[in-house]
Amino acid sequence: MWIFLNDRFVTREQAVVSVFDHGFLYGDGVYETLRSYGRRVFMLHKHLARLERSATLIGLAIPIPEKDWPGLLQEALERNSLEDAYLRITISRGEGEIGLDPMLCPRPTVVIVAKPLPQYPPHLFDRGVSLALVSVRRNLSSALSPQIKSLNFLNNILAKQEALRAGAFDAVMLNAQGLLTECSTSNLFFVRDGRLCTPSAEAGILDGITREIILLLAGEQAIPVEQGLYTPAVLRQAEECFLTNTTMEVIPVREIDKFPVGSGLPGPLTTRLRSLFRTNLSRFLE
Amino acid sequence: MWIFLNDRFVTREQAVVSVFDHGFLYGDGVYETLRSYGRRVFMLHKHLARLERSATLIGLAIPIPEKDWPGLLQEALERNSLEDAYLRITISRGEGEIGLDPMLCPRPTVVIVAKPLPQYPPHLFDRGVSLALVSVRRNLSSALSPQIKSLNFLNNILAKQEALRAGAFDAVMLNAQGLLTECSTSNLFFVRDGRLCTPSAEAGILDGITREIILLLAGEQAIPVEQGLYTPAVLRQAEECFLTNTTMEVIPVREIDKFPVGSGLPGPLTTRLRSLFRTNLSRFLE
Repeated sequence: MWIFLNDRFVTREQAVVSVFDHGFLYGDGVYETLRSYGRRVFMLHKHLARLERSATLIGLAIPIPEKDWPGLLQEALERNSLEDAYLRITISRGEGEIGLDPMLCPRPTVVIVAKPLPQYPPHLFDRGVSLALVSVRRNLSSALSPQIKSLNFLNNILAKQEALRAGAFDAVMLNAQGLLTECSTSNLFFVRDGRLCTPSAEAGILDGITREIILLLAGEQAIPVEQGLYTPAVLRQAEECFLTNTTMEVIPVREIDKFPVGSGLPGPLTTRLRSLFRTNLSRFLE
Repeated sequence: MWIFLNDRFVTREQAVVSVFDHGFLYGDGVYETLRSYGRRVFMLHKHLARLERSATLIGLAIPIPEKDWPGLLQEALERNSLEDAYLRITISRGEGEIGLDPMLCPRPTVVIVAKPLPQYPPHLFDRGVSLALVSVRRNLSSALSPQIKSLNFLNNILAKQEALRAGAFDAVMLNAQGLLTECSTSNLFFVRDGRLCTPSAEAGILDGITREIILLLAGEQAIPVEQGLYTPAVLRQAEECFLTNTTMEVIPVREIDKFPVGSGLPGPLTTRLRSLFRTNLSRFLE
């Protein structure tokens, strides 16, 4: 396994950072998860733009010129002989004396990991997954904006742990007002009265890139779409439900808090959107 | 510099963790900052109990038996020829495949850093520091409890950055309800009508150990003490204000948002409590 670290590719054993890296001390950094399909990267420039946004919001200057990213990601795929792959770019504040001030760190740390896509069991897609509404609330936007895809992921980890303890695949998190936001690493969609609904940015979510593509595809097909603020009660009455993220694309949800969603099988709109996503995929590869 | 890493002392250059350490990937871990006075550690067992609490709250089993910590901290001081020192214990989830589930990480990473105390300029204590009320709110307790002293510190970093941009020493953070909480790495006290006031745990603060000692000492001296929920307006009318933390003990606050606190000099109760802290210090060393 070859990992890009700062300025070169190194082995997994060599891919280490100082215990004084502020990524390790404080989770002070940002990241993006990308997916390649046969070495073409899904929505590459959108991911890079979001990385830049995250970095800007924490006052971190990315030390790699934007034009160099496509080549570096390709090299990561080639060196690891990967076709369909998972890619993670991590940029931390870098090594520096202990203390909160980012000025202590002169040079950010850059890491690119490329690895085979996780093998998701087919039943996740064929039968759908289970969700649990958890007590862990989503971070307050005014405390840590969801627009920053940061290395501070304990909020989501605590939510995921609670969901796993409840025997569920993932957690549905509410915001401070008790309204639906998203899952630990995916966006949430549901169908109500034939309309495709998803919590709006205002609810305090990361504006997922696969989410955006689904909204685009639905719009193109004149499927009625609604972004809004929703209570959990609305979700419990949904006819269908699914999740989106970069690595899993569209994942049907079978049950929420042990209660079946609709028929308990992937719904027709979910199946149609998953299929539309796959058939339109090449439009979104770079 | 000798750093304890997992099971032995290593040099600074050797003190590295994998880029797959979940401390680096997600800030998934906990820490404590301690201070020694001539090799005796301030409130050692209280710090260790809080470390244990933090770890328990994120479902992390600390791999070092509690009885071994005092010896390890002493060794860290001795190997680095330190007397009065700053100590940081960091425990991350450890190395594991990418993914939120802590089960991916079989072995937590343990780090002990011991270094000379930062040289705080004397004027911080003689003249006091300036604070800025920042727009960054304190993490929601139900999203990431302040009882977890975690490696997810971006909330505090964003607050500190905003304070530094405003020319202040540190940030006063409000909670979601707009009530006073604490500063980026210290607890907040102020004096109003001769009463010593500090935000209560309910406001969403870390229950600082120096904070607790100050409350104890004030109680012993029959100084009227109040823990409560306060608006920023109350702070702006304070007669005195100071901060507490382990490394800086008691730090007077001179001004808030450019307006002087009281006379603009360290107040009599602040000075008295700082002096009481120093004269009683030996009671709290282990």
